[in-house]
Amino acid sequence: MKSVNVGLCGLGTVGSGTFNVMQRNLEDIARRAGKPVRITHVGARRDNPACHLGSVKVSRDIFDVARDPDIHILVELIGGNDVAKELVLEAIKHGKHVVTANKSMIAIHGNEIFKAAEAQGVVVTYEAAVAGGIPIIKGIREGLVANDIKWLAGIINGTGNFILTEMQEKGRAFADVLQEAQELGYAEADPTFDVEGIDAAHKLTILASIAFGIPLQFDKVYTEGISQITREDVKYAEELGYRIKHLGFTRKTNEGVELRVHPTLVPSKRLLANVNGVLNAVLVEGDAVGPTMYYGPGAGSEATASSVIADIVDIAREIDNAGNVPHLGYSSETENMPVLPVSEIVTAYYLRITVKDEIGQMANIARIMSEKGINIEAIIQKEPEDDSAVVPLILLTHPVREHRMDDAISAMQALESVTKPIVRIRVEQLDG
Amino acid sequence: MKSVNVGLCGLGTVGSGTFNVMQRNLEDIARRAGKPVRITHVGARRDNPACHLGSVKVSRDIFDVARDPDIHILVELIGGNDVAKELVLEAIKHGKHVVTANKSMIAIHGNEIFKAAEAQGVVVTYEAAVAGGIPIIKGIREGLVANDIKWLAGIINGTGNFILTEMQEKGRAFADVLQEAQELGYAEADPTFDVEGIDAAHKLTILASIAFGIPLQFDKVYTEGISQITREDVKYAEELGYRIKHLGFTRKTNEGVELRVHPTLVPSKRLLANVNGVLNAVLVEGDAVGPTMYYGPGAGSEATASSVIADIVDIAREIDNAGNVPHLGYSSETENMPVLPVSEIVTAYYLRITVKDEIGQMANIARIMSEKGINIEAIIQKEPEDDSAVVPLILLTHPVREHRMDDAISAMQALESVTKPIVRIRVEQLDG
Repeated sequence: MKSVNVGLCGLGTVGSGTFNVMQRNLEDIARRAGKPVRITHVGARRDNPACHLGSVKVSRDIFDVARDPDIHILVELIGGNDVAKELVLEAIKHGKHVVTANKSMIAIHGNEIFKAAEAQGVVVTYEAAVAGGIPIIKGIREGLVANDIKWLAGIINGTGNFILTEMQEKGRAFADVLQEAQELGYAEADPTFDVEGIDAAHKLTILASIAFGIPLQFDKVYTEGISQITREDVKYAEELGYRIKHLGFTRKTNEGVELRVHPTLVPSKRLLANVNGVLNAVLVEGDAVGPTMYYGPGAGSEATASSVIADIVDIAREIDNAGNVPHLGYSSETENMPVLPVSEIVTAYYLRITVKDEIGQMANIARIMSEKGINIEAIIQKEPEDDSAVVPLILLTHPVREHRMDDAISAMQALESVTKPIVRIRVEQLDG
Repeated sequence: MKSVNVGLCGLGTVGSGTFNVMQRNLEDIARRAGKPVRITHVGARRDNPACHLGSVKVSRDIFDVARDPDIHILVELIGGNDVAKELVLEAIKHGKHVVTANKSMIAIHGNEIFKAAEAQGVVVTYEAAVAGGIPIIKGIREGLVANDIKWLAGIINGTGNFILTEMQEKGRAFADVLQEAQELGYAEADPTFDVEGIDAAHKLTILASIAFGIPLQFDKVYTEGISQITREDVKYAEELGYRIKHLGFTRKTNEGVELRVHPTLVPSKRLLANVNGVLNAVLVEGDAVGPTMYYGPGAGSEATASSVIADIVDIAREIDNAGNVPHLGYSSETENMPVLPVSEIVTAYYLRITVKDEIGQMANIARIMSEKGINIEAIIQKEPEDDSAVVPLILLTHPVREHRMDDAISAMQALESVTKPIVRIRVEQLDG
């Protein structure tokens, strides 16, 4: 099985993330791609101390990578428009497939680049150009292929969403939050691209093209920023049952395609209205499937690298015509990973313990938990549910191995003062 | 370009949806697949009046479809385990690729089926088997291919989620909501598979295998249903900042894989806790990307068909080695779809109009809107923002074409009593 050689141009935020994730998950990626996939040539003006390049060939002239005869795939992560486009066209000319995260290059020069690629029989992929780590290009181009797509709406700029979330949750002013976002590194020193919607317009251009099968037309996107949004409007919107989100929105009508980026009131109960902070989400309405939504980090070094590598593996699978994705995602299965019996899982618990309404019951329960080494996060004694002489004690515990909790429950259940079966429901924080 | 012939077995809920969506979106699907894709043979014990089969060949013996030499892809939508498995193995034996929506067949017999397929050099795909119309198999197997997946949590049974949502939002009892779900057709007469977690365990089995590269091991899933969940527990959980969801949960630990379906307290602020009604969602934590979530309908005729057809097109693209997805998703671009200028879009509006604090202002505004033919959904006069002599009027309008709204805003702005620029923010309901 021939291995696939990747040339990586750019060692900035996304480039270094791509290099490091490829190194770290090398074996898993090879198992999923069905063949080894390696970065063998890096083009960067300078090294990045975050990357240990080892024996990988390094060129200071990125165009050397485009011309390297051993490279199958060139990964363009230098950003910007003109040099990036020149690099990509040079790589295409030399028969390389190309992976890029460059939304403005694709939105502005994509039609020309794709035409050149098709003429050469190579592909240019750009999953990372829209919504960072969310596989939204794949979701629409492949997952929703059956659908006549009606419209889509996206929170596709994390900086703007962070600002609007802070304004909404804390009643802060735009300028105040922008300054904090700049200090946190969420916003650039010149925030125009983010807060005036240009970045979102690049991404919307791409989304609309793949949704409706139309050419990329960045110059036709109506774009309005969020810098004029006031605290008052955020508050009044909330009172009316809405939240203000900076949406990229595109819809097919009988007269043509709407293509617009602007602040938008969205009903608070919609899941999209509850996408907060720097996170991104895209909601797509298809005629067959109805609404589907895709959520995750829209930026960041390794999050964006996740999409870059997904593109690399897609292309690697097609090289030498080994196109099919393995049935369970891996070309060979792991055998040495046992499934744990439920007694061995570790989780937190909610317990409802019905006890006689007498003093000292909470202390009894707390003592047993302590003896079993289980930490209690909260314990609340509720009012009696009716006129009965029993009360519910509600407990939240810290994570503990299930068999230990089983023991504790047995011990508590044996207490004469516990009058009903103890209710136990597991708790998961789902926070990473 | 050779066309791809599809044999469809089963004309029930998903089968009829698949047939009808394939017919309706025939041209778009061909443009995306790069070749015609047609259902040419249907196997079903009886016709379904919802499907106009026209000249399509029909067999009452589904095994005739598996043996039809003109068929490239067999779509198994008959459900059940034994006959379905026999049909799929027969199709594989005859060199057909297979698409199925059958979660229990894959969860229980998938290892055997995939082995047979690999021996014959064909593929068996099953996007529709998990979370209906959500492209979650593709998302994990391909979109997150770069990641060491840490855990995933899914609301993967719509019936159970509908019941828990009703219990939480309306304080209803389990048995009461179950009965309504049965009347609405969300729950089967025998609801065991749904409410006791067996259906979710089938899907979790599949998700865990593709996330971690382990064999399908349905018999090792710990499964607990929601029939014992009480109103009290739902209420106490809410007071503690949690919601009870019936999750499929799998996590990789140093000791092995946790594989469990049970009611779970999830922090209310998590997006997953806000997935309500019959909708499904899967949250996946990858080491590179962090959290991503995939949301949409987990069942339904055309929603599930959407995933069945996505699988068909994936396979069709690979036949004759035309594997690459077109750059913008379509093999040719639509040219005749103009992008609308923003003056021609139709949307609702939020307006904030600052007027002198005098009587008759609301009537003035309402009159202008009426003259311009704009319907007002709500108009609210707020208190003065400080001691000033002006007050904000907040309006929500019905949808109207933007140039008409531009006219109305000009007219209102010209009023002597309107003291500041009118603030206008567009409103989208995003409800289909």
